[in-house]
Amino acid sequence: MENKVKQIAVIGSTGSIGRQTLDIVRALPEHFRIVGLAAGKNIALLKEQIAEFKPKFVYYEDRKARSASSKCEFLAPEEIACHPSVDTVVIATSGKSGLKPTLAAVRAGKNVALANKESLAAAGEVIVREAKRTKARILPIDSEHSAIWQCLRGEKQKAARIMLTASGGPFRNYSFSQLGKVTVEQALKHPSWQMGKKVTIDSATLMNKGLEVIEAHWLFDMPYENIQVIIHPLSIIHSMVEFVDGSIKAQLSLPDMRLPIQYALSYPDRLPNPKLPRLDWGTVSSLTFEQPDMATSPCLKLAIEAGKKGGTYPAVLCAADEVAVEFFLFHRIKFTDIPRLIEQVLAEHQSIAHPSLEEIVAADTWARDKVAQLVPGDNPCQY
Amino acid sequence: MENKVKQIAVIGSTGSIGRQTLDIVRALPEHFRIVGLAAGKNIALLKEQIAEFKPKFVYYEDRKARSASSKCEFLAPEEIACHPSVDTVVIATSGKSGLKPTLAAVRAGKNVALANKESLAAAGEVIVREAKRTKARILPIDSEHSAIWQCLRGEKQKAARIMLTASGGPFRNYSFSQLGKVTVEQALKHPSWQMGKKVTIDSATLMNKGLEVIEAHWLFDMPYENIQVIIHPLSIIHSMVEFVDGSIKAQLSLPDMRLPIQYALSYPDRLPNPKLPRLDWGTVSSLTFEQPDMATSPCLKLAIEAGKKGGTYPAVLCAADEVAVEFFLFHRIKFTDIPRLIEQVLAEHQSIAHPSLEEIVAADTWARDKVAQLVPGDNPCQY
Repeated sequence: MENKVKQIAVIGSTGSIGRQTLDIVRALPEHFRIVGLAAGKNIALLKEQIAEFKPKFVYYEDRKARSASSKCEFLAPEEIACHPSVDTVVIATSGKSGLKPTLAAVRAGKNVALANKESLAAAGEVIVREAKRTKARILPIDSEHSAIWQCLRGEKQKAARIMLTASGGPFRNYSFSQLGKVTVEQALKHPSWQMGKKVTIDSATLMNKGLEVIEAHWLFDMPYENIQVIIHPLSIIHSMVEFVDGSIKAQLSLPDMRLPIQYALSYPDRLPNPKLPRLDWGTVSSLTFEQPDMATSPCLKLAIEAGKKGGTYPAVLCAADEVAVEFFLFHRIKFTDIPRLIEQVLAEHQSIAHPSLEEIVAADTWARDKVAQLVPGDNPCQY
Repeated sequence: MENKVKQIAVIGSTGSIGRQTLDIVRALPEHFRIVGLAAGKNIALLKEQIAEFKPKFVYYEDRKARSASSKCEFLAPEEIACHPSVDTVVIATSGKSGLKPTLAAVRAGKNVALANKESLAAAGEVIVREAKRTKARILPIDSEHSAIWQCLRGEKQKAARIMLTASGGPFRNYSFSQLGKVTVEQALKHPSWQMGKKVTIDSATLMNKGLEVIEAHWLFDMPYENIQVIIHPLSIIHSMVEFVDGSIKAQLSLPDMRLPIQYALSYPDRLPNPKLPRLDWGTVSSLTFEQPDMATSPCLKLAIEAGKKGGTYPAVLCAADEVAVEFFLFHRIKFTDIPRLIEQVLAEHQSIAHPSLEEIVAADTWARDKVAQLVPGDNPCQY
């Protein structure tokens, strides 16, 4: 085990993944030190984090609050992400905001602990190409991709097949008409995971799983036809890998994001941490599995289709989803309007094959405007 | 991947594991070649195997049948096991007969693909010490230990805990009085695995799982208190490993011994083999787990106790079990007499700490005689 204390920057430190990352650093101060914190609008919490972790660099959206961090250097997230004093960058934001710091960190050859699904889903081709060039290591924090990564550990050959497990969200077995009546409050209650709003809604629509399929394609160089989604409501098996000989490995644990976060930070070591929960096999009597119902999971279908088509389709998918979810959270559209809007925007999109980052960003902007045009009334979304 | 064809010797080629090993060699002739075959009394099958695989060395118990192998050199199993032209020795016999060839192979620094539970259970301390000295690699073929070995692959740290799964055998949930009436025919029908007679009876008494606990202790340097037995009737999860961070890895596949056999032969590679069955997740709706009932599984309890006490107790356990199972197969004792006899013999044994091989063999002989004395009438067993 290396004795060096890893220097960590957290982009999105006041969100769900950011706070859980700081829990890990707090529990293992002899292994990790915070050097940078970037947040959005939650200045009150960021101030507490600054007081506790004393980072060198900070960022927050509201520049007026700058006096809050007189002892820290104020840098943009993408500057923190590639700063020479940072070893590992945790990209803990959701949505589009993860893309710039992710790319900056990858281009600087950092260890990039990636919780942001959208950057890899929208710009996987660019990010993976850059990571190869700079030898940056992408360390997945998503529980599913962490599971796959753990299962592949030490194997000489790549996987033959990936089985991505999905809790199925709170509306598993709902009919399409029942889904039409789902409220924001219902959608924000996830049965097994504690997550941010965007990810929770994406879990309810299964868009989350669709984005994870695209991520898995890029992270593990896996053809879409060899990625299978399996509904596993208890969320104890976090994903599985099948090898060429038919042997399958699975990674299991109680659903707690701190484990994949810690694994990404400590890799290649594993660290004992009494704060992490242990699975008690005396309490597990059954692990169940179902096939996803594609008819009532249009977002999953749209995501896999966009992934297969490639080009700028996945970027459009991500952007349209992000805006549609925001409209839903503002009570402006129905739950079932989310896939309807995304489908309409994808249908009108003229994709560019092997897009540059600029072309991805342009497709993203086009898709956001398009969704806003399709919803009558003002646009309350900020992006 | 190395291109070298591995030279394989199979000790116990006409038994269940032996025949399945030859299935793998037959399916992958570009990777494996048979150079030695050792069998017991099934000369007819051995002749067919000799005709098909053309080994250099053979062994069989009935010396009168020696003309059957005029083109092969006749060598004792332990001579075949350490011959310079052999890369990997598969120890496919059950019971005591595995010990001598296993030790010979280990002392010669071979790759030892070990299906024989008793040699490691009885003489684990000696075998592991010799393997360290010669750098012989013990490649477990038991599905459970193969699973653990696969889960540990690439990990830098040893496991924190091992969860050994057990089908529970055909008499799971039987009361003690129901167990007293179990017939040989019932005990030979295992719900999920096709195996030899000795192993099948041991699975029904859970002695098999007890021996595997002792094996796991020696193979993975794991304290007994960190080895947990979990009943998993479907036999799809073949065992699990928990790491210091609480993350668990499991290895899964349909119950088919050819997979762990192939993995041991091909290691560190994995080879595609269309003959091996694939798990179809569309057909798996639930994996269930139970705690073992120690009250109706006295063999499991006796084995773990013998393992913890160490010395020559495990050798006595193995020997007493082997003879008791033979008496049961000869309809001379009841199913529930198996643990009763073993317990009685263990209670009378005077153990020797850190025994030499000679002391292990002496304890084995003592235990066999002791069981025979405890059963009224002639002794029909051969050993």
